[in-house]
This record gives sequence, C-alpha cells and structure tokens, in this order.
Amino acid sequence: MKKNILYAQSGGVTPVINATACGVIETARQHRDRIGKVLAGKDGIIGVLREELIDTSRERKADIAALRHTPGGAFGSCRFKLKGIEESRGQYERLIEVLKAHNVGYFFYNGGGDSADTAYKVSQISKKMDFPVQCIGVPKTIDNDLPVTDNSPGFGSVAKYVAVSIMEASLDVESMASSSTKVFILEVMGRHAGWIAAAGGLAQKESGDPPHIILFPEVPFNEKAFVAKVKKAVETHGYCSIVVSEGVRGPDGRFLAEAGTRDAFGHAQLGGAAPVVAEIVKSALGYKYHWAVSDYLQRSARHIASAVDSEQAYAVGAAAVRFALAGKSGVMPVIKRISNNPYRWKIEEAALGRLANREKLMPKSYISSDGFGITPVARRYLEPLIVGESYPPYDRKGLPKYVRLKKTLLKKVLPPFEV
Amino acid sequence: MKKNILYAQSGGVTPVINATACGVIETARQHRDRIGKVLAGKDGIIGVLREELIDTSRERKADIAALRHTPGGAFGSCRFKLKGIEESRGQYERLIEVLKAHNVGYFFYNGGGDSADTAYKVSQISKKMDFPVQCIGVPKTIDNDLPVTDNSPGFGSVAKYVAVSIMEASLDVESMASSSTKVFILEVMGRHAGWIAAAGGLAQKESGDPPHIILFPEVPFNEKAFVAKVKKAVETHGYCSIVVSEGVRGPDGRFLAEAGTRDAFGHAQLGGAAPVVAEIVKSALGYKYHWAVSDYLQRSARHIASAVDSEQAYAVGAAAVRFALAGKSGVMPVIKRISNNPYRWKIEEAALGRLANREKLMPKSYISSDGFGITPVARRYLEPLIVGESYPPYDRKGLPKYVRLKKTLLKKVLPPFEV
Repeated sequence: MKKNILYAQSGGVTPVINATACGVIETARQHRDRIGKVLAGKDGIIGVLREELIDTSRERKADIAALRHTPGGAFGSCRFKLKGIEESRGQYERLIEVLKAHNVGYFFYNGGGDSADTAYKVSQISKKMDFPVQCIGVPKTIDNDLPVTDNSPGFGSVAKYVAVSIMEASLDVESMASSSTKVFILEVMGRHAGWIAAAGGLAQKESGDPPHIILFPEVPFNEKAFVAKVKKAVETHGYCSIVVSEGVRGPDGRFLAEAGTRDAFGHAQLGGAAPVVAEIVKSALGYKYHWAVSDYLQRSARHIASAVDSEQAYAVGAAAVRFALAGKSGVMPVIKRISNNPYRWKIEEAALGRLANREKLMPKSYISSDGFGITPVARRYLEPLIVGESYPPYDRKGLPKYVRLKKTLLKKVLPPFEV
Repeated sequence: MKKNILYAQSGGVTPVINATACGVIETARQHRDRIGKVLAGKDGIIGVLREELIDTSRERKADIAALRHTPGGAFGSCRFKLKGIEESRGQYERLIEVLKAHNVGYFFYNGGGDSADTAYKVSQISKKMDFPVQCIGVPKTIDNDLPVTDNSPGFGSVAKYVAVSIMEASLDVESMASSSTKVFILEVMGRHAGWIAAAGGLAQKESGDPPHIILFPEVPFNEKAFVAKVKKAVETHGYCSIVVSEGVRGPDGRFLAEAGTRDAFGHAQLGGAAPVVAEIVKSALGYKYHWAVSDYLQRSARHIASAVDSEQAYAVGAAAVRFALAGKSGVMPVIKRISNNPYRWKIEEAALGRLANREKLMPKSYISSDGFGITPVARRYLEPLIVGESYPPYDRKGLPKYVRLKKTLLKKVLPPFEV
C-alpha cells in the first residue's frame, strides 16, 4: 500500500520556503504510483500533534505551482521545539500515532538545526515503536547558519534584498548629503551570525562604494573606532552608509538594541539597533541621520528573490522526495558548491546527526581586519547566492500574484491532544 | 545664438526623479539645432548659486539613458528654499547672474510646491532684470501633495513599494501568528498627507485582506478605537497587519513618533511611530509584535518601481523641453487623468502660480468612516498609479546596473558667492 508524505514547515519563514513545498508536492505528484498524498502540518509541528493535517491533494495544480513564487509559509509554521525523547516522550508518541493514523511513511521537516534534530529523533523513535517512518530534514533558514550545507535556502534572497536595498538607499542619502542627512543606517536580521549583514557588502561594486560600515554580531561594538570610521567616511565620501545586524553587542555582551531605549513609562526596548547607532552618531558627531529597520520586509521580499536561491529551495524539496523513494531516512539534502566561476552546485546527502543543533558562524576570515567590512573571500562565497532575479508574476493592477491555499483539513480520527 | 537649459533637482529625491532628468536631456539632445547644452545644478539650487554647474554634454549617451532606471538624485539635491524676492534679493540676483554668465535661456526646476514657487519668482525677476529666462517647473514628490496635477511623479513607485511590502510581510506574520507574532506594523513616510499610507490599502485584493488598519496623519490617533480594532482583527483573522504614517498625531496634536521614546540618558525621540504603536498594542493586548520602518528604502526602491510612474516621470521631463521650445514660461507640465478604465492620461500645462506653495491633502472621501482604511473612491484613484513593473537591468552578479555620472563642472567665471 502506498504511503503518504507528511510535510511540515518549521521556524521563521523565508521568501522561498514555499518553493521547497512546491518541489516536494510537484515531485511527489509525479510518482503517484509509489507515493500517496502529500499532507502538510497546519502551522507546523503543532498542527501535526493536534492532528490538523492539510490535504494538499485538494489544491489545484496551478495553486501548487504558484507556491514557487509566494512568500510566507503557505501551510503555517511555528517555533515549537520538541525536547529530548525522554523529556517529551508523550509528544513523540503522539506524533507517531498521528503518522500511523494517516498512513504516513515519510516525514519531511523543513527547517533549521532544531528541525534537523527533531526529524532525527522521530526517525529513531519510530523504529522503536515499530512504525518505521522515513524522516528527511529539508534545509531552510535565512540565517544561513546550518552546517554541512554550503548555504541555506532562504538566505540568498534575503542577501539580495539587503544588498539591493542598501545600494538604493545609499544613492538617496548621497544625493542630499551636502546639505542634509549624512548618515544612513539599515538594520538587518541575524541574532547570532552576521551572514545577512555581510551580504550588504555585496553592494560595493568598487572600493569606496557604500556601505562604508557593517556592524557584525561577531565583532563586539567598539564605539570609538566606529565613530572615527563614520567621521572618515563622511569626510571622504560626503556621507556614510551603514548596515547593522540586530545582533550587535557591546563590550559588556549586551545587545545594542537593548542598550537603554525606554518609553515615557520606563518600559525597556522599544527600538532596534539602528536607532541606538543613530543616536551614537548624532551625539558624537552631530550629523543628521536616517535609519530603517527592514524586519519582516527582508524575510518576505519575494519580489526581489534570488533566482539561484529560489532554484535551490525547489531542488531540496524535490530531492527530499527522491531520497524518500530511494528508501533513505535520517538524512537531509544539502547544497554542495562545485565551483565558483562559473558557479555550479549540486544536491548531496548528509546525515541529520551531523546537522542537528549546530550553528555555522561566519569564519573570521570573512570579516575585514578593522571589523567593519567583508573580505574578498567572503565576497567570493556570497556573490553567487544572489545571482539572477526570480520575479513573481503580477496581475493587471500591478500586484504580485501570491497564492493562498484552501488548506482543507483531513478528518480527525484520534482523540484530541493538548499541545 | 542657442541658449542652454539649466536643470536642478530639489528636495527629497524619488525612485524616478532621474527618469525626469533623462527625459529632459534626451529630448534636448534631439533639438541640438535650437537648444545648447543641458547644464545641471550640483546638489540643486545651492550649486547654481555657487556656480557649480554640471555639463551633461560630457556624459555618455548610455549613461544618460541609464538615468531612467537609477534611483536617488543623480546631480544632487537640497532642501534650500529661496524666500521672498525682497527678503532674498541678493540670491535671486546671483541666480540671474549665473544664468547670464552661462548663456542659460531655460530654467527647469524639478521639485514640489516650494520649487514651483521659486521657479515662478525667478521668471518674474529675470524679466525685471532684463535677462528673461523661460522658467518651467517640473513636478516631483513622493508625497503626492502637489495641487493641479492628478498625481506627482515619484508617488506611484513608493505606493507600489508600500503595497507590495505590506502584502509580503503580512503573509509572513500570518504564517506564524497562531503561536508567535500576531501584530505587524510598517511605518511609511508622509508627514502631512496620508497618500503613501493609503497606498498600503491597495494590497487588499479581497475584503478581510491585510493591511487591517491604516493610520493616517489626517485622522487624530484614537487609542481606544485602535486597540479595539487590533483585537477584532486578531480574533477574526488570527493576526493584524498595520500601516502607520510617520505623521500620525495624537489628540493633543503631537506626533506619535515623539510620544515619549527616550534612551537611557533621557534623550528624546530615537524611534519612529511604529515602535510607539507596537508598545501600545503590547501594553493593551499583550500580543507579540514586529515592526519595520522603511524610511529611505521606500523612497529609493527603484527595483520595484511602477511602470506608469516611471513613464510619467520621463514624460514631464520631455514635456518641459517641448514647453521651452514653444516659448512658454511660468508653467509646469502636469498629469491629467483622462479615464480610469482603461487608465489613460496626458500631459497638460498649468500656471506655476496655481501650484506654488499649496498642499493637496487627501480628500475626506478617501478615508473610510472608521478612519482606519481607504474607500472604493480612493482605490479607484490609486490603483492605476502602481500598474506595471519597471525593472532596472541587472548585472551578472545579481545587482542593479545603476549609473553614477561623471558630473564634470563648468569652469567658473564669476566671483565666489556665500550661500
């Protein structure tokens, strides 16, 4: 009897996570002889535990195809983390029960390091419980902090958004710097690793081009050196363009974003890192500033997605199905870089155990010696990931044609379960 | 003897102000028999007063063509406002001296209401000083607050950016709302008029679609009604997506953005309106939130420019040259809407006196009765302005091919002048 696939999205979404879902569903539909339905957890693993399973076979072919260019997480996602097997045995057992009740033979978990860990544990416990399920992790994270894989689907599109945005905003501030705003600061995501901030450096086509300063979470904030660098940039170029990671910390280890912003009632932490950095510039140098916080915009900007990223996101989804058909379990399709120039890559297989709960920080060699920029080796790594523009189709009113699925749930057959 | 054109950019730049410059220069180059060079003020009118004039004839044809898709202000801009003729007689006289010294017969001032006023005054004083110059205002402002013209070049592209961005970010927050962030707030520009905030409403393709709330500068912030509306949206849709104009004011008339954000040292006003609104939501309802401040990103996002906007920006530049050749002065080419469906428009001529120093606020009929959304009549007005995607070309590294001009200055012939 044919088994179903259960696919679930996990953690923060990306501009291209739905391309991965599209890769899974379209590839599975090509193998109807061997694979049953693709089910999807509503709002991720929480929905699986609640037996809220979306029947993707009820979605139109054109709508599934449109997932390829639709941002957000089309089936919903969550940050729910299953703990150790002993600690959360009830949840693991429930998970297996749900899989069993709906004839699931393949569990695809689309997320980062935590999800790889969960998928790994599910593969182990399913064997013990005598209902073996093939568990396959599918990589996704804008943070690019997954080990083993050369890069993570989702990162390239955010990188492209950040590079294009800082390039454009820098042209704006440059236009008026002689008599007005001299410093522009763009805050980007990256709590622990500076991959996204580093991508801002790609906007520099020539030496002296903006951004003039990048502030990484890997480099403790040195106010004196920073202020001197801003001053130098303004004196040299007339303005200073800055990318700051939300994860930048002061020498005391505290996030800059927490460094004292309070509202009138004394509530801490309204702001991000950008306004704090702006205030430091103004206090020290008196320059007029502007700042932007891109927040979810960067993570959902499918309108300026990287074609390479979109293609890789689809490919890891398709590969998960091929791995399943080949009988594999406890693995993840990862991206292997074959060459830089021309950029070539392929999908390989990695054991989930190698990926679980490990964070890939930026190598020291990627950050320039003064701590405020990227090195040529970083550029060589990052450049191919933003190549190509994968535009969504637009309607006649000038808006992207993003799809919302029907998300028809399967009928529940199990008793309720409190998550 | 053929006269030169002097072109200057004024005030905040737009994603398409350089398309207007391109329209001026390319059209002038088609009439070399009657028009000399196109000169451009470096950094706007300040450069004209300082006799810092860029000789655009030194720029390559391909670079001028690339202005059409390059954001920022390619010649530089400023917010310098010439006051009344009596008050600033010295500056007006200097301006005329510079025009005379460089054989300028046509002065094109590319800006908003202030610039229309300046162009008008220059036309008057030049006659009095017996060096008649044909003065033509060329419309530009992302704020869309110029009277007479149906819309202002620059606005449509910002409107498209805001509509696309809030649509995308809303898909993101919707994905995770069941267990995480429930409220997303995007802050957009518009100190006095809510045109840009209103454009966020275009993201709603169907009733109930995000954004669920728009906060306009025209509507005093009603905290109680706002909180109730957020609660309702979250209960109905699972999340609430909000666009807030930077210019929103409380019932006391103070900007919300000033409403109390202080750093640890007690400095006022680090933040924008979005973090203040976010804090109100959290205090009243306890929902997890995210916020973005798009700032210069919205004003420079040439990568997602409206094709209609880009075309109109070019057209007003080209029309300015035609007006000059027709002997006109004291006028501005404006956009006249002929029909909505299909959208058709043409360029007309308006007297500068009618445009000077007047702000076009949003009609009351554009804001829904509860004050939190746009009406069908607003939608009919706004919709055509974001139609079509005018993408810039990209290089092989995945970055837009934006041009930086040589900006060769003419040799000065006059004594220095202190601005």
